Amino acid sequence: MEDLITLRALRYLQKADHIFAPNNRGKRRAYEVIKDFIDEEKVIFVDFPMGEAMKAIYEKTFDVIDRTTKDGELSVFITLGDGTIYATLIEVLRERGKSDIALELVPGIPAFLAGINALIESLVLKGESFLLLDRLPFEEDLKADTVAVLKAREPERLFEHLEKCGYDPLYLENIETDRWVMTDDVEKCRDRKTYMSLILARRRPWNMAEISKHIGGRIRLL
Amino acid sequence: MEDLITLRALRYLQKADHIFAPNNRGKRRAYEVIKDFIDEEKVIFVDFPMGEAMKAIYEKTFDVIDRTTKDGELSVFITLGDGTIYATLIEVLRERGKSDIALELVPGIPAFLAGINALIESLVLKGESFLLLDRLPFEEDLKADTVAVLKAREPERLFEHLEKCGYDPLYLENIETDRWVMTDDVEKCRDRKTYMSLILARRRPWNMAEISKHIGGRIRLL
Repeated sequence: MEDLITLRALRYLQKADHIFAPNNRGKRRAYEVIKDFIDEEKVIFVDFPMGEAMKAIYEKTFDVIDRTTKDGELSVFITLGDGTIYATLIEVLRERGKSDIALELVPGIPAFLAGINALIESLVLKGESFLLLDRLPFEEDLKADTVAVLKAREPERLFEHLEKCGYDPLYLENIETDRWVMTDDVEKCRDRKTYMSLILARRRPWNMAEISKHIGGRIRLL
Repeated sequence: MEDLITLRALRYLQKADHIFAPNNRGKRRAYEVIKDFIDEEKVIFVDFPMGEAMKAIYEKTFDVIDRTTKDGELSVFITLGDGTIYATLIEVLRERGKSDIALELVPGIPAFLAGINALIESLVLKGESFLLLDRLPFEEDLKADTVAVLKAREPERLFEHLEKCGYDPLYLENIETDRWVMTDDVEKCRDRKTYMSLILARRRPWNMAEISKHIGGRIRLL
């Protein structure tokens, strides 16, 4: 996964005076991705107990970054995927208040894009639409041609709802890691509760025979 | 924009025996992005008269790649943005028939992500949804919290429809180029017919004063 970093991100990491890295109850996933590219001594871990409501923690984090960064210095705050998509990074920046610190965001590859690319399938063909969610709206119909549901902690409920709406769902877990697995069989993902998971569902059915040919040693089929 | 290439893409470009680059009526946008990283002699341009229905051209292109690539060789087909999103690249791969060529797709940064990152705004916060389209479904209501409409050739109709649905629309053009412009004023984009354009619309209104502070010299406000 570390080679999905952009040249722009690499340049900033190497120029940085300080690198802020999230620590979620001992998990330091974003740091693990970049650790071979950077000077260890620049890293400052910031604690995020993932999943909790934490406006005060976001505020405090921005404040620490702001105070640590002296005039003329460059600080980098790292995140997995893209910082504008369900990310702690943008939550922290939203609490910047009246700070006069100059900001720039570097776009990254989100998990749903890494996932669909590995399948050698289309996310959207011309005229189609794509919907991104971090939970299903169970109460209503979905109309998009392709749907991605992130953090798919109850795959069996999601599979059931998506199939009822006319979709063919696929479960993917730990994308771009050496524990990357997937399945189109709800029985094989029913009891999995992995945070780093998503469901890709498309109206045009997946061709599993073709997909299996291309995922090779990268993705294990459950 | 060339520094939004990933390290993985760069490695394949530098290892490639052949690099196939789209030529759309003389425009070679993807090639312009990578030309400083590669050996010119490896480049083979393939013609795509953009916008036309072209199954036969996609088939012929795959056939050319297949025949050019000898046993043990590596060919790279380049695209702007991400190859699974409204891209010629995935259309060509869909016409691969029974070819035994081994395939791998490298994910890239799509324009809507480069756009939202430059604004230092969220695409989706926790609990929100995002809808990606290449044309509006004028007949129906939109429910997502954020919407991106690509190739926004009739910005005035799109602004009107999105505002009626409760969104705050922004027009962006030539993202990540030196002709990058944007506006939140429909009067200023009414007659623009640029292919490389998109509209980002959000239910939570954009803070234009804050956005203007951060786009600096990169984006010109119309």
